[in-house]
Amino acid sequence: MSITAGKVIKCKAAVAWEAGKPLVIEEVEVAPPQAGEVRLKILYTSLCHTDLYFWEAKGQTPLFPRIFGHEAGGIVESIGEGVTNLKPGDHALPVFTGECGECPHCKSEESNMCDLLRINTDRGVMIHDNKTRFSIKGKPIYHFVGTSTFSEYTVVHAGCVAKVNPAAPLDKICVLSCGISTGLGATINVAKPKPGSSVAIFGLGAVGLAAAEGARISGAKRIIGVDFVSSKFEEAKKFGVNEFVNPKDHNKPVQEVIAEMTNGGVDRAIECTGSIQAMISAFECVHDGWGVAVLVGVPSKDDAFKTNPLNFLNERTLKGTFYGNYKPRTDLPAVVEKYMNGELEVEKFITHTVPFSQINKAFDYMLKGESIRCIIRME
Amino acid sequence: MSITAGKVIKCKAAVAWEAGKPLVIEEVEVAPPQAGEVRLKILYTSLCHTDLYFWEAKGQTPLFPRIFGHEAGGIVESIGEGVTNLKPGDHALPVFTGECGECPHCKSEESNMCDLLRINTDRGVMIHDNKTRFSIKGKPIYHFVGTSTFSEYTVVHAGCVAKVNPAAPLDKICVLSCGISTGLGATINVAKPKPGSSVAIFGLGAVGLAAAEGARISGAKRIIGVDFVSSKFEEAKKFGVNEFVNPKDHNKPVQEVIAEMTNGGVDRAIECTGSIQAMISAFECVHDGWGVAVLVGVPSKDDAFKTNPLNFLNERTLKGTFYGNYKPRTDLPAVVEKYMNGELEVEKFITHTVPFSQINKAFDYMLKGESIRCIIRME
Repeated sequence: MSITAGKVIKCKAAVAWEAGKPLVIEEVEVAPPQAGEVRLKILYTSLCHTDLYFWEAKGQTPLFPRIFGHEAGGIVESIGEGVTNLKPGDHALPVFTGECGECPHCKSEESNMCDLLRINTDRGVMIHDNKTRFSIKGKPIYHFVGTSTFSEYTVVHAGCVAKVNPAAPLDKICVLSCGISTGLGATINVAKPKPGSSVAIFGLGAVGLAAAEGARISGAKRIIGVDFVSSKFEEAKKFGVNEFVNPKDHNKPVQEVIAEMTNGGVDRAIECTGSIQAMISAFECVHDGWGVAVLVGVPSKDDAFKTNPLNFLNERTLKGTFYGNYKPRTDLPAVVEKYMNGELEVEKFITHTVPFSQINKAFDYMLKGESIRCIIRME
Repeated sequence: MSITAGKVIKCKAAVAWEAGKPLVIEEVEVAPPQAGEVRLKILYTSLCHTDLYFWEAKGQTPLFPRIFGHEAGGIVESIGEGVTNLKPGDHALPVFTGECGECPHCKSEESNMCDLLRINTDRGVMIHDNKTRFSIKGKPIYHFVGTSTFSEYTVVHAGCVAKVNPAAPLDKICVLSCGISTGLGATINVAKPKPGSSVAIFGLGAVGLAAAEGARISGAKRIIGVDFVSSKFEEAKKFGVNEFVNPKDHNKPVQEVIAEMTNGGVDRAIECTGSIQAMISAFECVHDGWGVAVLVGVPSKDDAFKTNPLNFLNERTLKGTFYGNYKPRTDLPAVVEKYMNGELEVEKFITHTVPFSQINKAFDYMLKGESIRCIIRME
């Protein structure tokens, strides 16, 4: 039992007081974990586009003051009542979505969309009592997707915490909390390309590069990157991308360009941009008879996916995935092992590192499109 | 070697001289099979909606005079040069689509859409020499989908013929040539419902009932039939359908009705009508996390499938299938065995039987919606 167990911890956190304004490092009070919760000491966290998106708060209901952050690695400091899957000292990755283990989704082999702990971007409180565990001089500070890892300590539902191999370096595997696993799982768990096959990746951001990494690990022969920014191709080569298409370079739909390059279509396509047009192109560029397209990128809420139904009748498959179909508690430890055994190369995703005091730099790198992942060191 | 091998055979065939006009039993000359072809003596054939559709020739380029028919059972009379997979005397089912065994589709485990022998409804000739094997006093009579089974003898590409167990009664298994296998395979091979699961079937015609039969064989617990004709429910019970929804009985979209009945959606849905609205409903009525919808019915050529892409992102899958994903030569013998071992109940699909001389009655039964399958006895 740690000496802080059961007590309020005062520590530093990066608080977003207003939409789009630089985070401010503040001293916050972090309450002890309640039933079913754990308190984590965060050692490393990284910045993901989802943090940026909700920090900018364009088009959503803003919820401030809030502590963002959802990719991280840490150590369990203390546990709340009834927590049996974790104990103080465990190395852990908090995850923005959870696994209660009891609902139909958790009991289904095919789903990871837990009814109880599924991502909720609007909720800024813990589900146990609808209260925050963060406060500054009594004023509550809201949580973000149940993780709020831009803090030296955070409280997370135990169902949202993956216990991982303590030998794994947390400054590397922290990026597996969200984006990298999302792209990797979309390919490995959902698209499932066969060795020697062809895979098109739409969007060469972090998620798309992780999808490419999944294709590389799967032994795909042709990995075709599709992006409007041609300069991304060079970096993408490190992730297995060996052909590149910029839709701007062609005066016909990119699905036709890809079909011509591949004698009728790719075996698999993975859409990682969220653009509705890219979704349609990704589906229509897969080969008839066996092609599978997987949607990862989150669309705008009023978008409509539209295609000729004969594209389906000709034996094409379209699937969507959430968090790469990984169940956080069950599956994430094995993703960490993929890194440990050298199969998955995590280092190449990490382009920048900053100390916690300079967390706003991580936002700058991402806004300028300079970083894939920027690690934020808490100590 | 039969005594007719290598010679023209004179026999009876039901010729469609004009769109929508009753077929006329004529004496036709059937040329010997050329390289890669076989000549079959047809013993039983049955009528499928596709025959009716092209006989009515509404909206297609009409091709007459023509011999329709593509569900049948017969015996190989003689074989053309280079045919090694069949010999005279073999019991066989001709199929409207084929399996060359050499193309990428045939070599793919996932596809049955053979590049060489894929269904072609416009072509009325054999691919070997672009000529017909049927004639009346020198005037060519066109083929239909490479089978033309409304004839005592017909010539078929050897890649479109499944050799089956000679102990299987051809007057029953002839219906496995098309519609029944299409629906059955859509469920068993593509939707793959688990024992105890829920399955919605859109359209309770022959294909939909076969899809239901597939769900029954798979051990589905809830089989929900969806049809605008409530009287079809009674017959559908024989095929495992145990709940029924008529969209007309509800003032909200049928996908919402089904979601309410099933606590969020069915595990699998199979669309067997070809209506674009039914396709959308079938997709949107499957459960998030694991639901799979399979499209079987052929849409109108200008239809657009449209849905909110979040329906995919929430881990739903949409697939189309052609001929139930069965490879005709490789897989059909095992479907026949499913019948032989009592797993698949073929008899209940056969509602009528007529002698060849009364083939037009089979059209009447189907036009009136009275029959599921009407067997036409050639002798």
